[in-house]
Amino acid sequence: MSILANYLQTGDWKGEKHVPVIHAPESISANVLTEIKLSIGDAIAHPNTLEHHISWFKLFFLAEGAKFPVELGTYNFMAHGEGEMFTEPVAIAKVKLPSSGKLIAISYCNIHGLWENSADVTVI
Amino acid sequence: MSILANYLQTGDWKGEKHVPVIHAPESISANVLTEIKLSIGDAIAHPNTLEHHISWFKLFFLAEGAKFPVELGTYNFMAHGEGEMFTEPVAIAKVKLPSSGKLIAISYCNIHGLWENSADVTVI
Amino acid sequence: MSILANYLQTGDWKGEKHVPVIHAPESISANVLTEIKLSIGDAIAHPNTLEHHISWFKLFFLAEGAKFPVELGTYNFMAHGEGEMFTEPVAIAKVKLPSSGKLIAISYCNIHGLWENSADVTVI
Amino acid sequence: MSILANYLQTGDWKGEKHVPVIHAPESISANVLTEIKLSIGDAIAHPNTLEHHISWFKLFFLAEGAKFPVELGTYNFMAHGEGEMFTEPVAIAKVKLPSSGKLIAISYCNIHGLWENSADVTVI
Ligand SMILES: [Fe+3]
Ligand SMILES: [Fe+3]
Ligand SMILES: [Fe+3]
Ligand SMILES: [Fe+3]
Repeated sequence: MSILANYLQTGDWKGEKHVPVIHAPESISANVLTEIKLSIGDAIAHPNTLEHHISWFKLFFLAEGAKFPVELGTYNFMAHGEGEMFTEPVAIAKVKLPSSGKLIAISYCNIHGLWENSADVTVI
Repeated sequence: MSILANYLQTGDWKGEKHVPVIHAPESISANVLTEIKLSIGDAIAHPNTLEHHISWFKLFFLAEGAKFPVELGTYNFMAHGEGEMFTEPVAIAKVKLPSSGKLIAISYCNIHGLWENSADVTVI
Repeated sequence: MSILANYLQTGDWKGEKHVPVIHAPESISANVLTEIKLSIGDAIAHPNTLEHHISWFKLFFLAEGAKFPVELGTYNFMAHGEGEMFTEPVAIAKVKLPSSGKLIAISYCNIHGLWENSADVTVI
Repeated sequence: MSILANYLQTGDWKGEKHVPVIHAPESISANVLTEIKLSIGDAIAHPNTLEHHISWFKLFFLAEGAKFPVELGTYNFMAHGEGEMFTEPVAIAKVKLPSSGKLIAISYCNIHGLWENSADVTVI
Protein backbone atom coordinates (compact mmCIF):
# COMPACT_ATOMS: atom_id res chain seq x y z
CA MET A 1 0.00 0.00 0.00
CA SER A 2 1.32 3.38 -0.99
CA ILE A 3 1.77 5.82 1.89
CA LEU A 4 2.15 8.89 -0.31
CA ALA A 5 -1.23 8.16 -1.93
CA ASN A 6 -2.83 9.37 1.29
CA TYR A 7 -1.00 12.68 1.02
CA LEU A 8 -1.78 13.66 -2.56
CA GLN A 9 -4.30 16.33 -1.76
CA THR A 10 -6.90 17.55 -4.18
CA GLY A 11 -9.66 20.13 -4.17
CA ASP A 12 -11.28 22.81 -6.24
CA TRP A 13 -8.66 25.34 -7.36
CA LYS A 14 -11.27 28.07 -6.95
CA GLY A 15 -11.25 27.56 -3.20
CA GLU A 16 -7.85 26.02 -2.60
CA LYS A 17 -4.73 27.98 -3.50
CA HIS A 18 -2.45 24.91 -3.74
CA VAL A 19 -4.25 23.04 -6.48
CA PRO A 20 -2.58 23.42 -9.88
CA VAL A 21 -4.83 24.70 -12.63
CA ILE A 22 -4.55 22.88 -15.96
CA HIS A 23 -5.28 25.03 -18.99
CA ALA A 24 -5.60 22.53 -21.83
CA PRO A 25 -7.94 22.07 -24.78
CA GLU A 26 -10.63 19.47 -24.09
CA SER A 27 -10.20 17.98 -27.51
CA ILE A 28 -6.93 17.60 -29.40
CA SER A 29 -5.59 15.91 -32.50
CA ALA A 30 -3.41 12.83 -32.00
CA ASN A 31 0.33 13.41 -32.40
CA VAL A 32 -0.07 17.12 -33.10
CA LEU A 33 1.61 19.77 -30.95
CA THR A 34 -0.68 20.89 -28.14
CA GLU A 35 0.09 23.59 -25.61
CA ILE A 36 -0.81 23.07 -21.97
CA LYS A 37 -0.42 25.76 -19.35
CA LEU A 38 -0.16 25.12 -15.63
CA SER A 39 -0.71 27.78 -13.00
CA ILE A 40 -1.75 28.04 -9.38
CA GLY A 41 -3.49 30.57 -7.29
CA ASP A 42 -5.66 31.78 -10.18
CA ALA A 43 -8.36 32.61 -7.65
CA ILE A 44 -6.36 33.03 -4.42
CA ALA A 45 -2.64 33.84 -4.63
CA HIS A 46 -0.17 31.56 -2.85
CA PRO A 47 2.70 33.20 -0.91
CA ASN A 48 6.13 33.33 -2.52
CA THR A 49 8.76 33.72 0.20
CA LEU A 50 11.80 31.74 1.27
CA GLU A 51 9.75 30.32 4.13
CA HIS A 52 6.71 29.36 2.10
CA HIS A 53 6.45 28.88 -1.65
CA ILE A 54 5.47 26.57 -4.48
CA SER A 55 8.65 24.71 -5.33
CA TRP A 56 7.72 22.69 -8.41
CA PHE A 57 5.10 21.26 -10.77
CA LYS A 58 5.18 17.92 -12.48
CA LEU A 59 2.94 17.00 -15.39
CA PHE A 60 2.04 13.40 -16.31
CA PHE A 61 -0.18 11.85 -18.97
CA LEU A 62 -2.17 8.70 -18.39
CA ALA A 63 -3.26 7.39 -21.77
CA GLU A 64 -6.67 5.73 -21.90
CA GLY A 65 -6.28 2.08 -20.95
CA ALA A 66 -2.62 2.51 -19.97
CA LYS A 67 -1.32 0.97 -16.77
CA PHE A 68 1.39 3.57 -16.16
CA PRO A 69 1.50 7.38 -16.26
CA VAL A 70 4.29 8.94 -18.36
CA GLU A 71 5.99 12.10 -17.16
CA LEU A 72 5.84 15.00 -19.61
CA GLY A 73 7.77 17.63 -17.66
CA THR A 74 9.10 19.02 -14.39
CA TYR A 75 9.17 22.75 -13.66
CA ASN A 76 11.25 24.04 -10.74
CA PHE A 77 10.63 27.57 -9.45
CA MET A 78 13.94 28.60 -8.00
CA ALA A 79 13.88 32.24 -6.80
CA HIS A 80 11.88 33.11 -3.70
CA GLY A 81 13.48 36.35 -2.59
CA GLU A 82 17.15 35.78 -3.42
CA GLY A 83 18.47 39.18 -4.53
CA GLU A 84 14.84 40.38 -4.47
CA MET A 85 13.97 38.03 -7.34
CA PHE A 86 10.84 35.90 -7.35
CA THR A 87 9.69 33.11 -9.67
CA GLU A 88 5.96 32.46 -9.69
CA PRO A 89 4.50 28.97 -10.26
CA VAL A 90 3.48 28.87 -13.92
CA ALA A 91 4.59 26.50 -16.66
CA ILE A 92 3.87 25.57 -20.23
CA ALA A 93 4.28 22.23 -21.91
CA LYS A 94 4.22 21.78 -25.68
CA VAL A 95 3.50 18.12 -26.23
CA LYS A 96 2.37 15.51 -28.72
CA LEU A 97 -0.05 12.94 -27.29
CA PRO A 98 -1.08 9.76 -29.09
CA SER A 99 -4.54 9.19 -27.68
CA SER A 100 -7.22 10.34 -25.29
CA GLY A 101 -6.38 10.26 -21.61
CA LYS A 102 -5.86 12.25 -18.45
CA LEU A 103 -3.38 15.04 -17.79
CA ILE A 104 -2.28 14.89 -14.15
CA ALA A 105 -0.51 17.89 -12.59
CA ILE A 106 1.21 17.79 -9.19
CA SER A 107 2.40 20.84 -7.24
CA TYR A 108 4.63 20.87 -4.20
CA CYS A 109 4.47 23.56 -1.51
CA ASN A 110 7.45 23.44 0.84
CA ILE A 111 5.06 23.76 3.80
CA HIS A 112 1.79 22.19 2.67
CA GLY A 113 3.01 19.23 0.65
CA LEU A 114 1.69 17.67 -2.54
CA TRP A 115 -1.42 18.69 -4.48
CA GLU A 116 -3.00 17.26 -7.60
CA ASN A 117 -5.35 18.20 -10.35
CA SER A 118 -6.33 16.33 -13.50
CA ALA A 119 -8.05 17.07 -16.79
CA ASP A 120 -9.44 14.83 -19.49
CA VAL A 121 -8.30 15.32 -23.06
CA THR A 122 -10.08 13.62 -25.93
CA VAL A 123 -8.52 12.87 -29.28
CA ILE A 124 -10.96 13.70 -32.06
CA MET B 1 -9.87 12.18 -5.27
CA SER B 2 -6.29 11.85 -6.39
CA ILE B 3 -5.84 9.98 -9.66
CA LEU B 4 -2.10 9.47 -9.26
CA ALA B 5 -2.70 7.74 -5.91
CA ASN B 6 -3.92 4.74 -7.90
CA TYR B 7 -0.68 4.61 -9.86
CA LEU B 8 1.86 4.71 -7.03
CA GLN B 9 2.85 1.11 -7.17
CA THR B 10 4.46 -0.75 -4.31
CA GLY B 11 5.77 -4.23 -3.68
CA ASP B 12 8.60 -6.18 -2.12
CA TRP B 13 11.90 -5.02 -3.59
CA LYS B 14 13.15 -8.59 -3.40
CA GLY B 15 10.66 -9.59 -6.08
CA GLU B 16 10.04 -6.33 -7.90
CA LYS B 17 12.93 -4.55 -9.58
CA HIS B 18 11.22 -1.11 -9.63
CA VAL B 19 10.76 -0.65 -5.90
CA PRO B 20 13.40 1.65 -4.37
CA VAL B 21 15.31 0.16 -1.47
CA ILE B 22 15.77 2.46 1.54
CA HIS B 23 18.95 1.84 3.50
CA ALA B 24 18.46 3.82 6.71
CA PRO B 25 19.08 3.21 10.38
CA GLU B 26 15.93 2.16 12.24
CA SER B 27 16.75 4.45 15.13
CA ILE B 28 18.36 7.85 14.89
CA SER B 29 19.10 10.85 17.09
CA ALA B 30 16.97 13.95 16.57
CA ASN B 31 18.65 16.76 14.61
CA VAL B 32 21.86 14.80 14.09
CA LEU B 33 23.22 14.06 10.62
CA THR B 34 21.94 10.72 9.37
CA GLU B 35 22.89 9.07 6.10
CA ILE B 36 20.24 7.38 3.99
CA LYS B 37 21.02 5.42 0.86
CA LEU B 38 18.55 4.66 -1.90
CA SER B 39 19.06 1.98 -4.51
CA ILE B 40 17.01 -0.22 -6.78
CA GLY B 41 17.38 -3.61 -8.29
CA ASP B 42 19.32 -4.93 -5.31
CA ALA B 43 17.86 -8.35 -6.02
CA ILE B 44 16.94 -8.08 -9.73
CA ALA B 45 18.72 -5.49 -11.89
CA HIS B 46 16.59 -2.99 -13.83
CA PRO B 47 17.59 -2.22 -17.45
CA ASN B 48 19.50 0.98 -18.17
CA THR B 49 19.01 1.93 -21.81
CA LEU B 50 17.69 4.97 -23.64
CA GLU B 51 14.44 3.09 -24.19
CA HIS B 52 13.97 1.87 -20.63
CA HIS B 53 15.58 3.20 -17.47
CA ILE B 54 15.06 4.57 -13.99
CA SER B 55 14.91 8.32 -14.46
CA TRP B 56 14.76 9.65 -10.91
CA PHE B 57 14.23 9.12 -7.18
CA LYS B 58 12.54 11.48 -4.76
CA LEU B 59 12.82 11.17 -1.00
CA PHE B 60 10.24 12.59 1.43
CA PHE B 61 9.89 12.55 5.21
CA LEU B 62 6.55 12.36 6.94
CA ALA B 63 7.07 13.33 10.58
CA GLU B 64 4.91 11.51 13.11
CA GLY B 65 1.61 13.34 13.43
CA ALA B 66 2.40 15.69 10.54
CA LYS B 67 -0.22 16.40 7.92
CA PHE B 68 2.22 17.02 5.05
CA PRO B 69 5.32 15.22 3.76
CA VAL B 70 8.45 17.34 3.28
CA GLU B 71 10.75 16.69 0.34
CA LEU B 72 14.35 15.92 1.29
CA GLY B 73 15.87 15.45 -2.14
CA THR B 74 15.53 14.66 -5.83
CA TYR B 75 18.09 12.58 -7.73
CA ASN B 76 18.07 12.57 -11.53
CA PHE B 77 19.97 9.86 -13.38
CA MET B 78 20.90 11.44 -16.67
CA ALA B 79 23.10 9.13 -18.80
CA HIS B 80 21.54 6.04 -20.35
CA GLY B 81 23.91 5.29 -23.19
CA GLU B 82 24.91 8.76 -24.39
CA GLY B 83 28.57 8.49 -25.44
CA GLU B 84 28.52 4.99 -23.89
CA MET B 85 27.98 6.47 -20.44
CA PHE B 86 25.46 5.06 -17.97
CA THR B 87 24.23 6.38 -14.62
CA GLU B 88 22.74 3.75 -12.32
CA PRO B 89 19.90 4.56 -9.87
CA VAL B 90 21.55 5.07 -6.50
CA ALA B 91 21.47 8.09 -4.20
CA ILE B 92 22.52 9.22 -0.77
CA ALA B 93 20.91 11.83 1.44
CA LYS B 94 22.60 13.28 4.49
CA VAL B 95 19.82 14.77 6.56
CA LYS B 96 18.81 16.05 9.96
CA LEU B 97 15.36 14.95 11.09
CA PRO B 98 13.54 16.37 14.13
CA SER B 99 11.39 13.42 15.16
CA SER B 100 10.28 9.90 14.43
CA GLY B 101 8.42 9.35 11.18
CA LYS B 102 8.40 7.67 7.79
CA LEU B 103 10.89 7.98 4.98
CA ILE B 104 9.08 7.68 1.64
CA ALA B 105 11.06 7.02 -1.54
CA ILE B 106 9.58 7.26 -5.04
CA SER B 107 11.22 5.99 -8.22
CA TYR B 108 10.18 6.70 -11.78
CA CYS B 109 10.78 4.29 -14.67
CA ASN B 110 10.18 5.91 -18.05
CA ILE B 111 8.16 2.83 -19.11
CA HIS B 112 6.69 1.42 -15.89
CA GLY B 113 5.78 4.58 -14.03
CA LEU B 114 5.94 5.43 -10.33
CA TRP B 115 6.98 3.12 -7.49
CA GLU B 116 7.15 3.66 -3.76
CA ASN B 117 8.79 2.26 -0.68
CA SER B 118 8.77 3.53 2.90
CA ALA B 119 10.70 2.93 6.08
CA ASP B 120 10.04 3.89 9.68
CA VAL B 121 12.71 5.75 11.60
CA THR B 122 12.48 6.20 15.34
CA VAL B 123 14.14 8.96 17.29
CA ILE B 124 15.66 7.55 20.46
CA MET C 1 40.09 27.97 -14.15
CA SER C 2 36.67 26.61 -15.04
CA ILE C 3 36.68 23.71 -17.51
CA LEU C 4 32.98 23.90 -18.30
CA ALA C 5 33.40 27.54 -19.34
CA ASN C 6 35.06 26.25 -22.50
CA TYR C 7 32.04 24.10 -23.30
CA LEU C 8 29.23 26.64 -22.95
CA GLN C 9 28.56 27.10 -26.61
CA THR C 10 26.83 30.11 -28.09
CA GLY C 11 25.74 31.26 -31.52
CA ASP C 12 22.95 32.91 -33.42
CA TRP C 13 19.71 30.99 -32.87
CA LYS C 14 18.76 31.74 -36.47
CA GLY C 15 21.58 29.50 -37.67
CA GLU C 16 22.11 27.18 -34.74
CA LYS C 17 19.27 24.95 -33.57
CA HIS C 18 20.66 24.42 -30.06
CA VAL C 19 20.71 28.01 -28.88
CA PRO C 20 17.77 28.87 -26.62
CA VAL C 21 15.70 31.83 -27.76
CA ILE C 22 14.75 34.31 -25.02
CA HIS C 23 11.45 36.08 -25.60
CA ALA C 24 11.47 38.89 -23.03
CA PRO C 25 10.53 42.55 -23.02
CA GLU C 26 13.56 44.81 -23.42
CA SER C 27 12.27 47.13 -20.75
CA ILE C 28 10.41 46.14 -17.62
CA SER C 29 9.21 47.67 -14.37
CA ALA C 30 11.11 46.77 -11.22
CA ASN C 31 9.41 44.18 -8.99
CA VAL C 32 6.44 43.78 -11.31
CA LEU C 33 5.50 40.41 -12.80
CA THR C 34 7.17 39.91 -16.16
CA GLU C 35 6.70 36.94 -18.44
CA ILE C 36 9.66 35.42 -20.21
CA LYS C 37 9.38 32.65 -22.75
CA LEU C 38 12.16 30.29 -23.75
CA SER C 39 12.13 28.21 -26.89
CA ILE C 40 14.58 26.56 -29.24
CA GLY C 41 14.63 25.68 -32.85
CA ASP C 42 12.51 28.69 -33.83
CA ALA C 43 14.32 28.74 -37.17
CA ILE C 44 15.59 25.13 -37.47
CA ALA C 45 13.83 22.38 -35.49
CA HIS C 46 15.91 20.21 -33.17
CA PRO C 47 15.23 16.43 -33.16
CA ASN C 48 13.14 14.99 -30.35
CA THR C 49 13.91 11.28 -30.00
CA LEU C 50 15.16 9.03 -27.21
CA GLU C 51 18.60 9.11 -28.83
CA HIS C 52 18.79 12.86 -29.35
CA HIS C 53 16.76 15.57 -27.66
CA ILE C 54 16.84 18.77 -25.65
CA SER C 55 16.71 17.63 -22.04
CA TRP C 56 16.39 20.87 -20.09
CA PHE C 57 16.60 24.65 -19.90
CA LYS C 58 17.85 26.72 -16.98
CA LEU C 59 17.21 30.44 -16.64
CA PHE C 60 19.41 32.76 -14.57
CA PHE C 61 19.38 36.51 -13.91
CA LEU C 62 22.53 38.51 -13.44
CA ALA C 63 21.57 41.84 -11.91
CA GLU C 64 23.61 44.84 -13.02
CA GLY C 65 26.70 45.09 -10.87
CA ALA C 66 26.04 41.74 -9.14
CA LYS C 67 28.84 39.26 -8.68
CA PHE C 68 26.65 36.16 -8.80
CA PRO C 69 23.86 34.96 -11.10
CA VAL C 70 20.62 33.84 -9.41
CA GLU C 71 18.69 30.90 -10.81
CA LEU C 72 15.08 31.67 -11.73
CA GLY C 73 13.96 28.27 -12.97
CA THR C 74 14.73 24.83 -14.36
CA TYR C 75 12.54 23.16 -16.98
CA ASN C 76 12.96 19.43 -17.67
CA PHE C 77 11.47 17.98 -20.86
CA MET C 78 10.76 14.38 -19.97
CA ALA C 79 8.98 12.55 -22.82
CA HIS C 80 10.93 11.73 -25.96
CA GLY C 81 8.93 8.89 -27.43
CA GLU C 82 7.76 6.99 -24.36
CA GLY C 83 4.26 5.73 -25.16
CA GLU C 84 4.47 7.88 -28.33
CA MET C 85 4.52 11.04 -26.20
CA PHE C 86 6.87 13.92 -26.90
CA THR C 87 7.66 17.07 -24.88
CA GLU C 88 9.12 19.93 -26.90
CA PRO C 89 11.63 22.39 -25.40
CA VAL C 90 9.61 25.47 -24.46
CA ALA C 91 9.21 27.15 -21.10
CA ILE C 92 7.73 30.22 -19.48
CA ALA C 93 8.90 32.02 -16.38
CA LYS C 94 6.80 34.60 -14.57
CA VAL C 95 9.22 36.58 -12.48
CA LYS C 96 9.78 39.77 -10.52
CA LEU C 97 13.18 41.36 -11.07
CA PRO C 98 14.54 44.21 -8.96
CA SER C 99 16.82 45.95 -11.43
CA SER C 100 18.29 45.98 -14.89
CA GLY C 101 20.50 43.06 -15.84
CA LYS C 102 21.01 40.06 -18.08
CA LEU C 103 18.79 37.04 -18.51
CA ILE C 104 20.95 33.99 -19.22
CA ALA C 105 19.36 30.83 -20.63
CA ILE C 106 21.16 27.48 -20.87
CA SER C 107 19.95 24.47 -22.84
CA TYR C 108 21.28 20.94 -22.68
CA CYS C 109 21.18 18.52 -25.62
CA ASN C 110 21.97 14.94 -24.58
CA ILE C 111 24.33 14.65 -27.58
CA HIS C 112 25.59 18.18 -28.23
CA GLY C 113 26.05 19.49 -24.71
CA LEU C 114 25.45 22.93 -23.25
CA TRP C 115 24.31 26.07 -25.11
CA GLU C 116 23.75 29.61 -23.93
CA ASN C 117 21.92 32.73 -24.90
CA SER C 118 21.48 36.01 -23.03
CA ALA C 119 19.28 39.09 -23.24
CA ASP C 120 19.51 42.47 -21.60
CA VAL C 121 16.51 43.79 -19.70
CA THR C 122 16.34 47.39 -18.58
CA VAL C 123 14.26 48.64 -15.70
CA ILE C 124 12.53 51.88 -16.68
CA MET D 1 30.74 34.54 -26.13
CA SER D 2 29.26 32.83 -23.11
CA ILE D 3 28.32 35.17 -20.27
CA LEU D 4 27.92 32.42 -17.69
CA ALA D 5 31.50 31.25 -18.37
CA ASN D 6 32.65 34.31 -16.45
CA TYR D 7 30.59 33.29 -13.43
CA LEU D 8 31.66 29.66 -13.04
CA GLN D 9 33.86 30.16 -10.03
CA THR D 10 36.58 27.77 -9.00
CA GLY D 11 39.11 27.50 -6.20
CA ASP D 12 40.70 25.09 -3.78
CA TRP D 13 38.01 23.33 -1.76
CA LYS D 14 40.32 23.45 1.26
CA GLY D 15 39.97 27.22 1.40
CA GLU D 16 36.64 27.82 -0.33
CA LYS D 17 33.50 26.29 1.13
CA HIS D 18 31.51 26.46 -2.14
CA VAL D 19 33.73 24.28 -4.30
CA PRO D 20 32.38 20.74 -4.69
CA VAL D 21 34.78 17.99 -3.70
CA ILE D 22 34.98 15.04 -6.11
CA HIS D 23 35.82 11.74 -4.46
CA ALA D 24 36.64 9.44 -7.38
CA PRO D 25 39.28 6.84 -8.15
CA GLU D 26 42.10 8.23 -10.29
CA SER D 27 42.13 5.11 -12.40
CA ILE D 28 39.12 3.07 -13.43
CA SER D 29 38.22 0.23 -15.77
CA ALA D 30 36.28 1.10 -18.91
CA ASN D 31 32.55 0.31 -18.78
CA VAL D 32 32.71 -1.04 -15.24
CA LEU D 33 30.60 0.43 -12.44
CA THR D 34 32.52 3.17 -10.62
CA GLU D 35 31.28 5.08 -7.60
CA ILE D 36 31.85 8.82 -7.36
CA LYS D 37 30.99 10.85 -4.30
CA LEU D 38 30.41 14.59 -4.28
CA SER D 39 30.48 16.71 -1.15
CA ILE D 40 31.12 20.28 -0.15
CA GLY D 41 32.44 22.02 2.86
CA ASP D 42 34.78 19.15 3.75
CA ALA D 43 37.13 21.69 5.28
CA ILE D 44 34.79 24.63 6.04
CA ALA D 45 31.06 23.96 6.45
CA HIS D 46 28.61 25.90 4.29
CA PRO D 47 25.44 27.27 5.94
CA ASN D 48 22.19 25.40 5.45
CA THR D 49 19.28 27.76 6.04
CA LEU D 50 16.31 28.93 4.01
CA GLU D 51 18.17 32.17 3.35
CA HIS D 52 21.48 30.59 2.33
CA HIS D 53 22.14 27.04 1.21
CA ILE D 54 23.58 24.78 -1.45
CA SER D 55 20.67 24.03 -3.74
CA TRP D 56 22.06 21.47 -6.17
CA PHE D 57 25.01 19.64 -7.72
CA LYS D 58 25.38 18.58 -11.31
CA LEU D 59 27.98 16.07 -12.52
CA PHE D 60 29.25 15.93 -16.10
CA PHE D 61 31.84 13.78 -17.88
CA LEU D 62 34.03 15.11 -20.67
CA ALA D 63 35.56 12.13 -22.43
CA GLU D 64 39.08 12.60 -23.74
CA GLY D 65 38.92 14.17 -27.17
CA ALA D 66 35.17 14.74 -26.96
CA LYS D 67 33.68 18.06 -28.03
CA PHE D 68 30.70 17.95 -25.65
CA PRO D 69 30.28 17.13 -21.95
CA VAL D 70 27.60 14.56 -21.07
CA GLU D 71 25.51 15.00 -17.93
CA LEU D 72 25.67 12.07 -15.51
CA GLY D 73 23.37 13.33 -12.76
CA THR D 74 21.60 16.16 -10.97
CA TYR D 75 21.14 16.20 -7.19
CA ASN D 76 18.67 18.64 -5.62
CA PHE D 77 18.88 19.31 -1.87
CA MET D 78 15.36 20.26 -0.92
CA ALA D 79 15.00 20.75 2.86
CA HIS D 80 16.61 23.79 4.45
CA GLY D 81 14.64 24.14 7.65
CA GLU D 82 11.12 23.13 6.59
CA GLY D 83 9.65 21.29 9.60
CA GLU D 84 13.14 21.44 11.13
CA MET D 85 14.50 19.15 8.41
CA PHE D 86 17.77 19.79 6.63
CA THR D 87 19.36 18.13 3.61
CA GLU D 88 23.12 18.53 3.35
CA PRO D 89 24.93 18.75 -0.02
CA VAL D 90 26.31 15.27 -0.67
CA ALA D 91 25.69 12.93 -3.59
CA ILE D 92 26.82 9.66 -5.07
CA ALA D 93 26.86 8.60 -8.68
CA LYS D 94 27.33 5.01 -9.80
CA VAL D 95 28.40 5.21 -13.41
CA LYS D 96 30.00 3.36 -16.30
CA LEU D 97 32.47 5.44 -18.31
CA PRO D 98 33.92 4.34 -21.65
CA SER D 99 37.27 6.11 -21.61
CA SER D 100 39.60 8.45 -19.79
CA GLY D 101 38.40 12.00 -19.28
CA LYS D 102 37.39 14.70 -16.84
CA LEU D 103 34.65 14.62 -14.24
CA ILE D 104 33.20 18.12 -13.83
CA ALA D 105 31.04 18.94 -10.80
CA ILE D 106 29.00 22.14 -10.46
CA SER D 107 27.39 23.39 -7.25
CA TYR D 108 24.85 26.18 -6.90
CA CYS D 109 24.52 28.34 -3.78
CA ASN D 110 21.34 30.42 -3.78
CA ILE D 111 23.40 33.45 -2.70
CA HIS D 112 26.88 32.89 -4.10
CA GLY D 113 26.12 31.38 -7.48
CA LEU D 114 27.88 28.65 -9.46
CA TRP D 115 31.07 26.81 -8.50
CA GLU D 116 33.08 24.17 -10.29
CA ASN D 117 35.59 21.47 -9.61
CA SER D 118 37.03 18.83 -11.91
CA ALA D 119 38.99 15.60 -11.60
CA ASP D 120 40.84 13.49 -14.14
CA VAL D 121 40.03 9.81 -14.39
CA THR D 122 42.21 7.46 -16.39
CA VAL D 123 41.06 4.19 -17.87
CA ILE D 124 43.68 1.52 -17.30
FE1 LIG E 1 1.43 26.56 0.97
FE1 LIG F 1 10.96 -0.49 -15.88
FE1 LIG G 1 21.52 18.18 -30.51
FE1 LIG H 1 27.07 30.44 -0.09
